[in-house]
Amino acid sequence: MTLFDRTEKSIGIAILGSTGSVGRQALDVVSALRPRFHVVALAARKLSPALIDQIARFRPEIVSVAETPIAAGHSIDNLITGADGLMAAATHNDAEIVIVATSGHMAIGPILSAIGRGKTIALANKEALVCAGELIVPLAAAHGTWIRPVDSEHSAIWQALAGSSIDQVKRIIITASGGPFRSTPERDFAQLTVAQALAHPTWSMGAKISVDSATLMNKGLEIVEAHWLFGLPYDRIEVLVHPESVIHSLVEFVDGGLIAQLGLPDMKVPIQYALTYPDRVPMEDKRSLDLAAIGRLHFEEPDVTRFPALRLARDAGLAGRTYPTVLSAADDEAVTAFLDGVIPFVDVPAVTESVLECHDAQPVTLESIFAADEWARAAAKNVIAKRRH
Amino acid sequence: MTLFDRTEKSIGIAILGSTGSVGRQALDVVSALRPRFHVVALAARKLSPALIDQIARFRPEIVSVAETPIAAGHSIDNLITGADGLMAAATHNDAEIVIVATSGHMAIGPILSAIGRGKTIALANKEALVCAGELIVPLAAAHGTWIRPVDSEHSAIWQALAGSSIDQVKRIIITASGGPFRSTPERDFAQLTVAQALAHPTWSMGAKISVDSATLMNKGLEIVEAHWLFGLPYDRIEVLVHPESVIHSLVEFVDGGLIAQLGLPDMKVPIQYALTYPDRVPMEDKRSLDLAAIGRLHFEEPDVTRFPALRLARDAGLAGRTYPTVLSAADDEAVTAFLDGVIPFVDVPAVTESVLECHDAQPVTLESIFAADEWARAAAKNVIAKRRH
Repeated sequence: MTLFDRTEKSIGIAILGSTGSVGRQALDVVSALRPRFHVVALAARKLSPALIDQIARFRPEIVSVAETPIAAGHSIDNLITGADGLMAAATHNDAEIVIVATSGHMAIGPILSAIGRGKTIALANKEALVCAGELIVPLAAAHGTWIRPVDSEHSAIWQALAGSSIDQVKRIIITASGGPFRSTPERDFAQLTVAQALAHPTWSMGAKISVDSATLMNKGLEIVEAHWLFGLPYDRIEVLVHPESVIHSLVEFVDGGLIAQLGLPDMKVPIQYALTYPDRVPMEDKRSLDLAAIGRLHFEEPDVTRFPALRLARDAGLAGRTYPTVLSAADDEAVTAFLDGVIPFVDVPAVTESVLECHDAQPVTLESIFAADEWARAAAKNVIAKRRH
Repeated sequence: MTLFDRTEKSIGIAILGSTGSVGRQALDVVSALRPRFHVVALAARKLSPALIDQIARFRPEIVSVAETPIAAGHSIDNLITGADGLMAAATHNDAEIVIVATSGHMAIGPILSAIGRGKTIALANKEALVCAGELIVPLAAAHGTWIRPVDSEHSAIWQALAGSSIDQVKRIIITASGGPFRSTPERDFAQLTVAQALAHPTWSMGAKISVDSATLMNKGLEIVEAHWLFGLPYDRIEVLVHPESVIHSLVEFVDGGLIAQLGLPDMKVPIQYALTYPDRVPMEDKRSLDLAAIGRLHFEEPDVTRFPALRLARDAGLAGRTYPTVLSAADDEAVTAFLDGVIPFVDVPAVTESVLECHDAQPVTLESIFAADEWARAAAKNVIAKRRH
C-alpha cells in the first residue's frame, strides 16, 4: 500500500531536534509524505531563522525551544520555552510518532513519558539507549510498542530481521566505514589533526559525530544501542569495517544464512522507513544503488589496538548500570577538548577510559543517569586539565 | 521455535530425484531434522545402489523408479516403476512437502497434481517454471500455496522479500558468478574446450548445469523462473555478475533500500529453509561467512555480447507461450552436442537461437509443452548436424 488512502487518518508527528541534520531531513520526508503525515510539534534549541521557517511551512500545534527568554520581536503561537518544552512536544496528544533527533540525554525523560502515553518512538538520539536502554526498552515492551531505529545501521538490522524472532539470530554485524584513519599506521596517531578527523570518508556529519567516527566510539555506542534495541547479548554483536558503507549492516541467522540491508548513503531512507513501517514508499529522485558501477566492496576486521573506543564501549555495555552514561559523557567532553585543540586525538579514548576506571556505578534511574553524566563531565575535565598539551 | 515439539505431527516429505546432488543433500537435511520431518516417498531414475541405501536409511512408504523392468534379484516393498512412479510419489497421501529435484519436464505433471492435492512444492527443477510457470503459479495461488524455491538465487530473493508485497519491489537482482569465461576475451571463445567449460569457479555441479553456467543460460533460465516465482515483469529482473557468489541475490525496494541474502555456497541452507519456512533451524557444523577474511566482493555488468544466452532467455520469456520450453530443450540438445565434442562452445547459444527463430509457438498446456520439447530437440539436432565440426 504505497498510496495514501484519504479515508485514513493523517498521522501526527512530533520532532525533537527539528533544526539539526536528521530533524531537517525528517521534515523533508514528512513533507513528501503529506497528507499521510503531518507535523504536530517541533522542538529545537533556539528560535533560529531555520525554526521560524519550519513553523511557517509545517504549522505545528506547538513549538518548543530550550532557550529562555526568547529574543524580542517574535510572536509565535503556542511557544513553550525551557526544559518543559521538550516534554510538551514529546507528549502532545496528537503526536502518534515522536522523532527524537536531539543529541544528549535531555530527551530521555520525554521519551519515557511519550512511551507511557502509547506513542511510537523513532530514535535518532544515541544517548537515550546508551544511557537508559534499561529503562526505555522494558517500558516500550510493556506498552506493546517498540523503538524504531532511525540511524542507518540499526535500521538495516531492523529491516534484515524483518520480524524474525531474535532466537533465530546467531549474530548481528554492524558495519563501520572505519573512519578517516582506517589505514593510518599507529605511529602516526600522535600527530592527527582536527581537520583530518573531520574529513569523514562517506557520510557528511556534525563535528562531534565525525570525531566519534574517527575514534570508532560512534560504532562502540552503536554496539550498546544494538544490545538494547534487539535484545542480543554483547558476544553476538560484531563490528565489521566496510569502507564503502554500502552494506549498512547484516544479520546472520542460526542456519548460517545472512540478510543484509544495502543502499546509497541517505538518511532519508531509514527516516522514512521508521515512519511508514511496515510499508515502503517510493522516494522522489532516488537513484538506484549501482553495484556494478561501484565494482568492489571491501571488508576488514576492526583494529581494537588503534581504536580502543570499541573495546571501551563494549566493556561499559557489559558492565552496565551507569557505566554507559559515563562512557558517553566522558567521550563528549574529550571530543570537545580535542576539537578545541586542548588534547591530542589519541587522548580522546584515553580520557574516557580514565574516567570509566574512576566511576562508582549505580543502578539505572533517570536521576542516576543525570548524576553520572554530571560526575563524568567533571571527572573528564579534571583528566583533560592534567593532559593539556 | 527451533526445537521440535514432540506433540507436533512429523511432516511427510516426498523427494523426486533423490539420488541426484540436490536429492542427496535434501535427505541429509531431512535426516538432521528428524523427527520433525520424515521421508514418505523417494523417486529416482533407476534402482541404483545409492537408492537402495537411501531406502534402507529412510524407509519410505513408496519408492518409484523410472526404469522398467527392474534388474532381477531385488525385492523392494511398494516399488512402482515407469512413468506412473513419479506421479505416485508426488501425490502420496502422507506427503505434505514434495521436493522436486529431478531435471527435465517429466516432473511438470506430477507437480500440478501435487499442488491440486494441496501439497507444498519445494522446487529445485528448472524446467517446471521455465516451461509451465503459466500453469503452475496460478494453480498454486488457487490452492493457497506457493512454490518454495530451493536454488540459492531464488531462495535468496524469497528470503530478502520476507513477506513484503511485490508492489513494494522496484527490481530484483539475480547474481551470477559469471562462470569460468567471465574474463575470457571474445576472440578466444572459438577455442573454448569442454574441460574449461566444466571448471566452474564457485559451485561444484553436474556437466549440463556447468555448461549452462559457462554460457550464462543457467542465469537466463533463472530470469524466467524469477518472473513466475515472484510475479515480476521482465524489466524489473536484472542480472549482476558477482564472481565470489557470496551475495546470492538482492531485492531493491521502492524506497531505494536493498535487502540481500548472503552466505557460503551450500545448497543445504536453501533446501532446509524451503522445508522449515518460516522457521530457521541451526545447521550442524555450519561455518560462519567471514567477510573480513574474504576481504573483497566484486560486481560487474553481464556482457550480453559474449553471453547471448541471457538475451535469448529474456526474449523467450517475454515472448511466452512455448518459447521458453523450446529455449530449454534446444539448449539441452546443444549442451549435449558440445559435451560430445560435436559443436564448439559458441554454437551452444547459436543453435538455441536458430531453433527459437523457427518455432511456431502455441498456448501453454501440458500437451503443448511436451510437443514443443520434442519438436525443439528434433529441430536442434537438425541444426547441430549442419554445424558439426
